[in-house]
Formats: sequence, structure tokens, C-alpha cells
Amino acid sequence: MNLSGRVVTVDRTRIVCGGKINLVDKFLRTNWSGISKIIILVDENTGRMCLPLLKEGTTLLENAFVLEIPAGEETKTIRTVMNIWNEMLVKKADRRTMLINLGGGMVSDLGGFVAAGFKRGISYINIPTTLMGQVDASIGGKTAVNFDGIKNQVGFFHLPVAVFIFPDFLKTLPVEQVRSGLAEIIKCALIADPVLWNKVRRMSTSDLSHVGNRLHEFISKTVAYKNSVVRKDFREKGVRKILNFGHTVGHAFESFSQTCNRKPLLHGEAVALGMICESYLSHLKTGLSLEQAEGIKSFIKSIYPPYHFTNKDMPHLTGLMEHDKKNRNDLINFTLLRSLGMARINVLCNHAEINESLEYYLK
Amino acid sequence: MNLSGRVVTVDRTRIVCGGKINLVDKFLRTNWSGISKIIILVDENTGRMCLPLLKEGTTLLENAFVLEIPAGEETKTIRTVMNIWNEMLVKKADRRTMLINLGGGMVSDLGGFVAAGFKRGISYINIPTTLMGQVDASIGGKTAVNFDGIKNQVGFFHLPVAVFIFPDFLKTLPVEQVRSGLAEIIKCALIADPVLWNKVRRMSTSDLSHVGNRLHEFISKTVAYKNSVVRKDFREKGVRKILNFGHTVGHAFESFSQTCNRKPLLHGEAVALGMICESYLSHLKTGLSLEQAEGIKSFIKSIYPPYHFTNKDMPHLTGLMEHDKKNRNDLINFTLLRSLGMARINVLCNHAEINESLEYYLK
Repeated sequence: MNLSGRVVTVDRTRIVCGGKINLVDKFLRTNWSGISKIIILVDENTGRMCLPLLKEGTTLLENAFVLEIPAGEETKTIRTVMNIWNEMLVKKADRRTMLINLGGGMVSDLGGFVAAGFKRGISYINIPTTLMGQVDASIGGKTAVNFDGIKNQVGFFHLPVAVFIFPDFLKTLPVEQVRSGLAEIIKCALIADPVLWNKVRRMSTSDLSHVGNRLHEFISKTVAYKNSVVRKDFREKGVRKILNFGHTVGHAFESFSQTCNRKPLLHGEAVALGMICESYLSHLKTGLSLEQAEGIKSFIKSIYPPYHFTNKDMPHLTGLMEHDKKNRNDLINFTLLRSLGMARINVLCNHAEINESLEYYLK
Repeated sequence: MNLSGRVVTVDRTRIVCGGKINLVDKFLRTNWSGISKIIILVDENTGRMCLPLLKEGTTLLENAFVLEIPAGEETKTIRTVMNIWNEMLVKKADRRTMLINLGGGMVSDLGGFVAAGFKRGISYINIPTTLMGQVDASIGGKTAVNFDGIKNQVGFFHLPVAVFIFPDFLKTLPVEQVRSGLAEIIKCALIADPVLWNKVRRMSTSDLSHVGNRLHEFISKTVAYKNSVVRKDFREKGVRKILNFGHTVGHAFESFSQTCNRKPLLHGEAVALGMICESYLSHLKTGLSLEQAEGIKSFIKSIYPPYHFTNKDMPHLTGLMEHDKKNRNDLINFTLLRSLGMARINVLCNHAEINESLEYYLK
């Protein structure tokens, strides 16, 4: 699998997978006549680790204005968005300002929101620096912030003009960040690609600590698959919901974990947990065999650390699922597996079934 | 001109101009399968004056949840949007919730913003109750709130699924509100319809106090024209900018007036003032004769009360224009008149020219 500067265009988004960092410079030069100013959004980590690399390869960014925000999910709020809009007004940003989001999913979700709303929409580029960002968050134009402690409750669909995926950024990524991103690769395999699933399930924890060609292949496959889905259904009216496998339970755990006195779950860790529960729901509702569900559970448990909760937490968790964006009335809407590599959207489950699936995780 | 239930469809927006209020009920019944809940957004005035009329004609709204916000431009903030999102979460609103904005431009701008962002976009209907709302704010999917004291700095393009224009709502409207809405009719005439301009300029202040067939004709013409422009250029990349005539100076005065210790200007009052200044700029830059500019000025001054400012205020005013969404670098971008009924977009003016146009208003 050769990733060198492979280019895919999704509607108006140019996606560049692999290649050298100076591809950003080339892209900016080609579109220079439409750009009045460039603002780079980083968090404290990417400002230190990634920005120097980006600037080195992109002479046009020498005088760009850099906005740094604190790292971490708790930054992803309307308050931060408002502070950034404020800074942009002070810097006299106009409609032809280009925003570059250099960071993980938090930076691209929040930066996309900033771009979508500023003067009713300016252009932006995502340069994801985490595996999660590269295979998921940076692609597809879903922007969001958390609200009232619930993840991604408000947001907009606003496509980036370009996404640059440089696996080199992953070399310095902590193992738990690689593991988090891997969850979206696992998801892609489970809903759409049995061959990929058979490759992925052969991974072990030791594979997480060096990012090599195998991971590059997984990234490229996952990006291509996500693109193909987004292209068919940008606004998630139908088929795009397929990408939500593992996310209904996963989002609930992600929000839940932020209210506990432990280290909060990373997005992918929560989704991995969610995929175990939703595999069990798939067994109950859409014909996945118990053996297949067990296979998924044992692989995920071999990679991800266990997460502790008790039966007492279940009403809180199902309550959080009710705020999930895919619901209709009081039943909860899931994307479930019919078999390995094949999913079905819009499966409604009741609270008893969901509780059973949570117990399945604990068993 | 017969307005009875005339229907125009702009992309995905159904626009109904005139007819009985039960047309809303009919629309909701036709689309009922896609709606889980209805929320009606009103301000304290429309909650009292218009909501009973709407509910009377629309039995489906009997159990709708009503959200009331304070009237007035100072309500149009992110803070209010956040409060409404909060209420919607408490009421377990989901993606199939329909929001009905019953009110003037403030309610539809803010309500559209609420709908655009909630769970990445829910459907909404505008039922404008002011002349400004009917001829301008409710149509075209521009949503916005004010930010840092500057009007409409953040917002999104998000089309309503339907707009219902009932001129009957205008019967109880205060004269200054009719006068404010009239500015958008004058603008439409000046940029696109010399015949309409010749009818409009024959109006006098006494015509503002009774809303009759003549105004109905003006509403219908202005709505049809705005539709035709929005259909060509939803995201204001080009021709839609034509609708900005009078608005660059107008928005600055509107923001400015909110920082003074006098009653703030209504949007249309500010646009009327802006049209006087921008007619003079049109004389300087795009060939409008001084006589024509004088004709516009004397008509507008015969309808709208004078607004006092001094040369000392000019730097503040031009500063506000620099935040206008249509700017490129430090020159300020205007839509100006080439002649009566014909406009040109993207005319750049410098500060000296703008100051001269402000002095022209004072003369």
C-alpha cells in the first residue's frame, strides 16, 4: 500500500493521504487568490510538537496568526468558540480568512464549528495529528462542541476544503492515543470490510507502540471507506448513520466518564466499549451470532483496559443515550451488525435490551 | 394583486404568501410522519398577540411546547441560543423536532441559528409577524446572532422548510415597525425594479398607518425578488451580495446606535440611512447621477426621522464597517447603484469616500 500523496476529492474536500508536508504549501499557493489571511488553530501539544514541522515545510505560513487553546475535551465548548471568534474579530479576520486546524479530533471538531459560524462560514483545512483525527474526526464535515456536559450536542455540517493526513505525525503519539484511533478502524472493519477485520484482529498491544506500514494500510482503507459513505449522505439522513456503530453506547460512556473522579475515557476507548455492548445488541436484534459477538468482545478486551461501572450507573447511562442525536421519541436508535462486515441502521432498542448489553460487557 | 395562498418553492423552502392561517395546519399534517415534537419560539409580544391566532387556526399546535424570549435586539445573543438549546434538551427534543419561529427578524434569525446548530440541524418554519420579517429576514436561510456588540457576526446558512407570510399580522404593527420593513421594499425597488420604485416613492408617512392592498403588492414583489436572488446564490458567493445595498453603512449605524444613550435604530431605519450614504457613494463610484441620489435622499428623509451624529463619530462608524462580512483586507466592500433599478456588487471604497458619504447624509 503506497500512501505517497494519494489524493481523493469528496465533493469540495481535497483529501491528501501521505506524502510530504510541503503538499500543504502547494495547496495554499494554488488557492492563494481566494485567501486574505491564515489563522492556525493548535492546542498546547500540537503547538509545540507539530507546528514547527508544519511551518518548516510551508513557507506561506511564516506570518500566519497562531491561536493556541488548552488540550483536552473540556476545552470543546461554546465558551472556547466565542473566545476564538473574539480573537478573530480583533485580528480583523474576514470571509476570505482560511483557518487551519492542526490537532486531534477536539481541535478539528471545534475549529470546524468556529469556521462554520464565523460570518456565516469561512474555509478551513484539517491537518489531523492523531490517529483518531486521521481516520475519523477530520473527515466528513461534522463539526461540534459539547454542551451541558453532553458530547457533540450542538454543531453544524461544514466541509473542510482540504484534509492532509501525514502518518509521520503519529510517530510521537502516546500509545493510548493510537489505541483510541484504532477503535474507528475496528469499526470500519466490522461494518464494512471482513477482510480488514481479519487483519485487524490479529493485532496485539505490542503493535500499538510502533506505527508502521500495516497501520498506514489500515488508515488508508478507513479513510477511503468513510469518504465513500460521506459522499453518499453528507447530512446523515440515511446511510451515513452506518458509521454510528458502537457510538450510541460509546458516547454515553464518554460523557459519563467525564463526570466521574477517574481519568475520562478517550473517544475511541469509549467506542470500543460501545462496540462490545452493541455487538451483543446485534446478537439480540439483527442476527449476529453469539460466537461472533464473543470474538469481538475478546479482541477488544485484549487491547483496551477494562472500564468499571455498576448496575447503579445504568439509568444514568441510558439517560445519556436519550440525548443521542439519532433518537426518535423514547426508543433508542442503533446501528447494529447483521454479520461481520455488514451493518443495519435504524434499529430501535428498549431500555431492558440496553441494560442487558451493559451487563454483557461486565460479564 | 391577489395574495391568497400563493405558493413559491425555493429549493427546499415552501413559501406561502397570503391566505388563511390554517394553511400552517395543512402543511404540518402533510409532513406529520417526519415530526416527533413541535416547539414554538415567540417573544413576549408575539406570544401575546400572534400565538393565539396561530393556535386557533392550527389544532396540531394545541400541545406544542412554547418557548418565550424577551423582545428586542439585545436578546439576539449566543447566551439566549444556549438557554434555548438547554430547554430543548430538557424537553428531550430530537432530530425530528420541528421549530416554529413566530415573530420578527430577531426571532427568525435567532431561531434559525438554534435550529441550525441543535444536533447538527433540525427543521424549522418561519412565520414572520413584522413587515421586516415578511419581506426580508424570514426568507433565504441566513441565520445569525450578534456578537461583541456587532450585528450578525456569527451565523449559518440553514434554510427553513417553509415560510408563511400572513399580512393580517401586520394590522396591529406599530408605525415605526412598518417603516422599518419598508426600507427593504425600497431597497428591492432601487436595486432591481424601477417601476416599483416609482410606486414606492409616491408613498407618504400617512400611508404607513394603514396596511392595505398597496402594501400587499409591495410585499409580494419584494418576496418574489428576494427568492429569485437566493435561489441563484444561496451562500452569497456572488449575486446575492446585491441584497446588501444600504446594509454596509446601515449595519454600522445599527451597531453604533446600540452603544448610544438614545433609542437604538431599528434595522430598517438604519438601512434607510445607509441607503442615503450609499446612494452618494454610488454617485462617486458607479455612475448614479447626483440628482438621482438627491431624489432617494429626499424621499427617505420624508419618511424616516433624522438621526444625529457628528464628525467625531465617523472613525467609530468606519471601524464597525470593517467588521462587515463582505470585506477584503482594509478596503470596504459595497453594493452600489449604477442607476435606479440596477446595482453592482463588489465595489471597494476607501475611508475618505465613506466619510464624504456620511457628511452627505448630514447636509
